[in-house]
Amino acid sequence: MPYDDIGSIRADAFNPYASPAADAALHVVVNRPRTMHGPELRRLVRLHRQDLESDSMADSVTGDPRFFARSGPHSLAEVVKVAGGVAPERSLLLEGIAPLQTAGPAQVSFLTSRRYLSELELTRAGAVIVPSDLHELVPRSAVPIQSTDPSIAWARVAALFHPPFPASPGVHPSSVVAESACIDPTAEIGPLCVIESGATIGARCRIGPGAVVGSGVVVGRDCRIGANATVSHALLGDRVYVYPGARIGQEGFGFAVSEGGFLTVPQLGRVVIQDDVEIGANTTIDRGSARDTVIGAGSRLDNLVQIGHNVVLGRCCVIVAQVGISGSTTLEDFVQVGGQAAFAGHLHVGKNARIGAQAGVISDVPPNASLLGSPAQSKWEFFRQVAMLRRRPR
Amino acid sequence: MPYDDIGSIRADAFNPYASPAADAALHVVVNRPRTMHGPELRRLVRLHRQDLESDSMADSVTGDPRFFARSGPHSLAEVVKVAGGVAPERSLLLEGIAPLQTAGPAQVSFLTSRRYLSELELTRAGAVIVPSDLHELVPRSAVPIQSTDPSIAWARVAALFHPPFPASPGVHPSSVVAESACIDPTAEIGPLCVIESGATIGARCRIGPGAVVGSGVVVGRDCRIGANATVSHALLGDRVYVYPGARIGQEGFGFAVSEGGFLTVPQLGRVVIQDDVEIGANTTIDRGSARDTVIGAGSRLDNLVQIGHNVVLGRCCVIVAQVGISGSTTLEDFVQVGGQAAFAGHLHVGKNARIGAQAGVISDVPPNASLLGSPAQSKWEFFRQVAMLRRRPR
Amino acid sequence: MPYDDIGSIRADAFNPYASPAADAALHVVVNRPRTMHGPELRRLVRLHRQDLESDSMADSVTGDPRFFARSGPHSLAEVVKVAGGVAPERSLLLEGIAPLQTAGPAQVSFLTSRRYLSELELTRAGAVIVPSDLHELVPRSAVPIQSTDPSIAWARVAALFHPPFPASPGVHPSSVVAESACIDPTAEIGPLCVIESGATIGARCRIGPGAVVGSGVVVGRDCRIGANATVSHALLGDRVYVYPGARIGQEGFGFAVSEGGFLTVPQLGRVVIQDDVEIGANTTIDRGSARDTVIGAGSRLDNLVQIGHNVVLGRCCVIVAQVGISGSTTLEDFVQVGGQAAFAGHLHVGKNARIGAQAGVISDVPPNASLLGSPAQSKWEFFRQVAMLRRRPR
Repeated sequence: MPYDDIGSIRADAFNPYASPAADAALHVVVNRPRTMHGPELRRLVRLHRQDLESDSMADSVTGDPRFFARSGPHSLAEVVKVAGGVAPERSLLLEGIAPLQTAGPAQVSFLTSRRYLSELELTRAGAVIVPSDLHELVPRSAVPIQSTDPSIAWARVAALFHPPFPASPGVHPSSVVAESACIDPTAEIGPLCVIESGATIGARCRIGPGAVVGSGVVVGRDCRIGANATVSHALLGDRVYVYPGARIGQEGFGFAVSEGGFLTVPQLGRVVIQDDVEIGANTTIDRGSARDTVIGAGSRLDNLVQIGHNVVLGRCCVIVAQVGISGSTTLEDFVQVGGQAAFAGHLHVGKNARIGAQAGVISDVPPNASLLGSPAQSKWEFFRQVAMLRRRPR
Repeated sequence: MPYDDIGSIRADAFNPYASPAADAALHVVVNRPRTMHGPELRRLVRLHRQDLESDSMADSVTGDPRFFARSGPHSLAEVVKVAGGVAPERSLLLEGIAPLQTAGPAQVSFLTSRRYLSELELTRAGAVIVPSDLHELVPRSAVPIQSTDPSIAWARVAALFHPPFPASPGVHPSSVVAESACIDPTAEIGPLCVIESGATIGARCRIGPGAVVGSGVVVGRDCRIGANATVSHALLGDRVYVYPGARIGQEGFGFAVSEGGFLTVPQLGRVVIQDDVEIGANTTIDRGSARDTVIGAGSRLDNLVQIGHNVVLGRCCVIVAQVGISGSTTLEDFVQVGGQAAFAGHLHVGKNARIGAQAGVISDVPPNASLLGSPAQSKWEFFRQVAMLRRRPR
Repeated sequence: MPYDDIGSIRADAFNPYASPAADAALHVVVNRPRTMHGPELRRLVRLHRQDLESDSMADSVTGDPRFFARSGPHSLAEVVKVAGGVAPERSLLLEGIAPLQTAGPAQVSFLTSRRYLSELELTRAGAVIVPSDLHELVPRSAVPIQSTDPSIAWARVAALFHPPFPASPGVHPSSVVAESACIDPTAEIGPLCVIESGATIGARCRIGPGAVVGSGVVVGRDCRIGANATVSHALLGDRVYVYPGARIGQEGFGFAVSEGGFLTVPQLGRVVIQDDVEIGANTTIDRGSARDTVIGAGSRLDNLVQIGHNVVLGRCCVIVAQVGISGSTTLEDFVQVGGQAAFAGHLHVGKNARIGAQAGVISDVPPNASLLGSPAQSKWEFFRQVAMLRRRPR
């Protein structure tokens, strides 16, 4: 596919491998992009087509410097220490991380499941994080880093090589901030945000481009509000991460049926989001009607989840994408819910319950239960029925 | 959890209990937030942590003045009149509303279901709205307000104590409004909105921060468009409320299969939203292909609903969260649809039909039908099958 | 319904039938809308009420000039040529397109299915595109245009009469564009956009109002990014269309369970979107963890779809609204997925597979399979079970 009109792209010092961190872009505003010409441009366009047209996993890039900060190289000893693992001492400098298939001799990789043993066998990685019982299967070219929990070790090593960008303190001049808002000087308010009256933004927060923080909202410390997200009628703890496009605090779905049609019931509660919660992209959390909607500390909500008014989630709940929880239902601590599952209103779900994907929960759930199906029933009963149906003759 | 870095928060006259209404914040633009110090700040941070860490419903706040306007106190007689109820005459000033568990002697509460009788017994509320047949169960410390419809009465009393904020007429200077747009002088256009060419915004409308109203769109009177919502190719009646992040009027999912791949079919219809409709947060309504997508007067759509092109909803339909309605399907008046239900395309659903949560409708539905299951069938047949399956032996 | 407060609407030369194209609205910024008075205004309001209150399909308008560009009239010969069809020669000027029910003598209409034969019989259209075997059923008042594929023919004729608006090159002065961004001079950056550092926008792209393009993102040629959409950590090919509110490139749902709660695993991959892909409104596509999330060339995703990290879609996949695909699942070329279906993680779905609406896929799928149900099974087995259950006696 010829890229025949490339003469027209403008840029002055276009460098696809420049670090956005170094750039501090959000605080440099300009509306006159510069022009670039000729062979350099053609080369860049060719690279872009290669990026797009590759369709094997081997062409994937981990930690593309256009998008991620980099740190390193780090010595094997340092990596082993961060991983909390055990490895033979060797003098080795590691420059980055990569999956088993694409890692080279200066990269560290990892294995979490026996499922990928064949890839372990062929890897060219310089070091591999593995569960202790598999360390003998690591090829001789690689240093095995034994770990009791390779997922945790990998998370830590990945963060070592690719630390998150720090906040760039300050309010972007294009943002609209109410006089009575209270913004910590270490917080970053991106371009074209709206911070309404009486809102408070804590230390080291990052408010993404186009986000709206409504009147009176309190955001704790080290929070991130994603691009174009909106938060109103809410109190957020520390280290809360609201992903792009999430909607928090709008009115719940509440109305009474009167003669003249539906009569809206004022929604006078709030949304309380405790510490260390993550709220996925385009997820919606309605505020309470007469009491609060509460998301317990450490809970993680995936994308496109719906949380109705007065819902209470306990601590460390996991809610996978597209789940819907109807008004006034309570989930206790450590409940896990699979994708697209749904809950009727006014239910109580006990601690540690596991609700399978696409389940439809229409009655209270005891602690530690494992449910599946619509209407939801015990996982074992569900599979018994599925098996029975398949056995039945024509 | 110590809040040790609070010295760094800035604000001058930070008052978490200031009324955002009095503040008229959206029209005060400033990018230099002020600084606050010391004990006052520490006290505020402590309050915030208390708000966050409470996990009993008793700590919920109804009508937090940081977020809601307040009116009152109101006399018992006035409250009874607004409620349309009946109560013994007594000299009592009421200051606000609250749930049974948290209400005090100067607050009015309500009971709609026998389910909460134990909370009625213990309430310290000064007055309680109850169905007529339960008024004898109200404790002697409270005035019973008998109502034939406590939900309606509650909605009216709640609105008495917490009236909605009025629009602050005018166009925020940060918004981008086309010269040919027509904006009623009583309408409020919030900060960072875009109103494109030829769009019309009626009297007393409130357009939230970051909302986009596309070319030619007509918005009637007393409408609200939520923060970061987008509306194009659409005509809206009066009192329409579009919640934050809703997407109205984009192209439908229409293409023909040609030799070279998919060929997009131009989507040349509109979205027509009649009076008194509410559209939930992040809900999507595609415009028609050759005719219009229509949402009938008084209908209420919850969050994350998908409405395909050419869909027609009658009057006063209720569509719960995460429902999907495929292209060219028609729902007549008063149809109610439970969460996550789905409709195939080109179907006709009769008046008053009730479709249960997670149902999958793949054929026409007669009026007044009650369906459940995927594929959807009569509710009774569905429960018969569920019961039968559970009875079957291994 | 009297429209009694119309005296207050402002506008100077308000014309509901002005073409937004001619207006070049986005580049005309003004915050002082003008005033209009009296009978003209009253007439417009009356028209608006008529638009809203009609509830028969006959009142639908195809190609309302407030929203769509118009071209024409075109001769019958030209229309037949564009349609790639066959028709008797006749001297006829056609002015537009419309459905069978509303088309008049100067309009062309179409029929794709025998389902609408009764409407064909009654049509007043001047010409009708029909499958070859139905051309004798076209009434004598209309010219039959025979086509081997009426959907394709219709798509082309519709685009003839209503060509898409061209981009209005240039960067709107209200947008925030990083100095290191590279924007083709033929691209249109709408109002209040954010283009971060190092991002590249190709020729003839249209970036809608309020959209955010993150650091380092590369957007190919002839792409459209819808209003209030956000794109980060992504590479886009040519002719990609991202609908309003879509979220591309945010972190996937990845964490390890540690003693102190959940530990976030850095998400260090990208999103690669190949040529000719469409991404529906409010759809979410997470970036990869250690490799890339890939959407294959020509694929079409409807609204509110969830794509987890590391998912790979082949070429020309069709994903209907509200589908969820969990992390690391791969769909080969030409897979079609019905609305609200869901896939567990780490699965492989073969070429040409068809997954029905609301299906729940929990194991690998062979090529050409047709699945339904949750858990998904062969379509025929699914319908056998449904039939069996219905037959069973009480």
